[in-house]
Amino acid sequence: VRVRELGEFGLIQRIERLAGGTRGAGVVLGIGDDAALLRLRPGEDLVVSTDAAVEGVHFRLDQESPRTAGRRSLAASLSDLAAMGARPLGFTFALAAPDDTQVAAILGMVRGMLDQAIRYSAPLVGGNVTGARELQVTLTVLGAVRRGRALRRDRARAGDEVFVTGVLGQQALERARGRVRHVPQPRLAAGRKLAGLRGIGACIDLSDGLLADLRQLCRASHVGVDLDAGSVPRPRGFAAACQRVGVDPEVLTLGGGEDYELCFTLRSGASPGVPHLARRLAVPVTRVGRISSTRGLRGAPPAALRRPGWRHF
Amino acid sequence: VRVRELGEFGLIQRIERLAGGTRGAGVVLGIGDDAALLRLRPGEDLVVSTDAAVEGVHFRLDQESPRTAGRRSLAASLSDLAAMGARPLGFTFALAAPDDTQVAAILGMVRGMLDQAIRYSAPLVGGNVTGARELQVTLTVLGAVRRGRALRRDRARAGDEVFVTGVLGQQALERARGRVRHVPQPRLAAGRKLAGLRGIGACIDLSDGLLADLRQLCRASHVGVDLDAGSVPRPRGFAAACQRVGVDPEVLTLGGGEDYELCFTLRSGASPGVPHLARRLAVPVTRVGRISSTRGLRGAPPAALRRPGWRHF
Repeated sequence: VRVRELGEFGLIQRIERLAGGTRGAGVVLGIGDDAALLRLRPGEDLVVSTDAAVEGVHFRLDQESPRTAGRRSLAASLSDLAAMGARPLGFTFALAAPDDTQVAAILGMVRGMLDQAIRYSAPLVGGNVTGARELQVTLTVLGAVRRGRALRRDRARAGDEVFVTGVLGQQALERARGRVRHVPQPRLAAGRKLAGLRGIGACIDLSDGLLADLRQLCRASHVGVDLDAGSVPRPRGFAAACQRVGVDPEVLTLGGGEDYELCFTLRSGASPGVPHLARRLAVPVTRVGRISSTRGLRGAPPAALRRPGWRHF
Repeated sequence: VRVRELGEFGLIQRIERLAGGTRGAGVVLGIGDDAALLRLRPGEDLVVSTDAAVEGVHFRLDQESPRTAGRRSLAASLSDLAAMGARPLGFTFALAAPDDTQVAAILGMVRGMLDQAIRYSAPLVGGNVTGARELQVTLTVLGAVRRGRALRRDRARAGDEVFVTGVLGQQALERARGRVRHVPQPRLAAGRKLAGLRGIGACIDLSDGLLADLRQLCRASHVGVDLDAGSVPRPRGFAAACQRVGVDPEVLTLGGGEDYELCFTLRSGASPGVPHLARRLAVPVTRVGRISSTRGLRGAPPAALRRPGWRHF
């Protein structure tokens, strides 16, 4: 069945029915009215972020199932909440689709999003459906964070040590292979723990690639960074896998993007040491450099600098 | 200058610079980080709604200026906050654009949105820019409403009287003429006053046409409605203008859509009378029917029923 046979209201009804199972504690009024109503706890601020994913650019339904594409899309959006140290409240979903789109593909994507919605307590609370020439989903995630405790990218200071969670480059390698990509795990729990950490500096999530995102962090904080490129954590067997595909591992780990790990800074002296930090955050943590008062990014090899991250135009 | 010459980050910078002037009281952290931070007042719930507008469907840059298109887009989104009785907190803006789009067209649309943002205290707090095959904007509006006081479409009861604000059909007539369309005024002030009114029942904003939206209100409330089609308020000189274009005025007022007026119900006996109500809400108000326990919509002429409102597929 294609979208034009089911119609706009039929499609909305199917999506609403799927979403019915994902009510969250903070949802006063979910999908179905002119707007949704959400309740924060006393002393919390609202966190909001919007992301778009276009078929053929951000996801490819000829290379991955709609469900995987849906999972990846919401994971990427929730990563922005992780980067702020927020707990999820819910999300809205705006769909633009050609009228010959298979309904099954759309509902598959919705199911994928709802998989994540249940896992991370981020119910679908509203959205919009419209006709268009290409398939596109726009996700707005809503979260809550204790006042004054939100993580921000403009809080790095000279002398801070720079850390990343997890390993980098896996998504870029999968992309280079033209394979079905992994679904990243938004670092929500780690982000919330970071927000409560003594000596925390700045934080950003790694969506465009370490170099590009670290540059954004430095720009926002009016500082520079000395990167220790050799210490950037890679997946097991990464160099060999890259060699087989004929790509440079360093280019992928530093510039590949879509890692959805967190990059954060800690005041010098405040760091409890990497092993303690990893236990505290319950994720792998690696020190990758130091913030400097001298602007600019140093320590990246020329090949990685030539491919500094994802560009849309 | 086209988007591909300026690049993604250049475009984002220009948009951020334009948005810089629209900080709102509730904005803790605006555009530029992974997410925005907004603060509600104690005792308020969050209101959130998402809408998409596609070039060629919702706006046409060959028929109206980018600035007018931008104004209309945000006005339509803010109307959803009006329908909930909410005060605006801000909005996010996701842009999908072909790489040969004129930067001036995009910035014109942003300026149009910011015109409304300033007028209605709804600052631009975040967004996203991505490449695509067609020009599309997705707006998410955020608002706040006193707990338990939000207007909802599922609160109509048998016996309620049905009212609309303003006049209906003007946008549909402009569309039929193929003319530059008026920018609707979201009924934010009236919505907030309605939310505090004794005897208020349900409320919905008129985006798809009176018949289609009233049906939604009835469906959500599990009731029906007896419409007094002859009483539906039209603009001055509307019948003559319709005759010149060769369209049926009743079809346009009942099914045209894009009126962005409010349709609401009041408990029978609670109505203070139309003149008093209009003064209280500071907008024209007309009684157009009565809610019934018998499901369905009665009183609409056949010609209007055949064109029951906007459909995307």
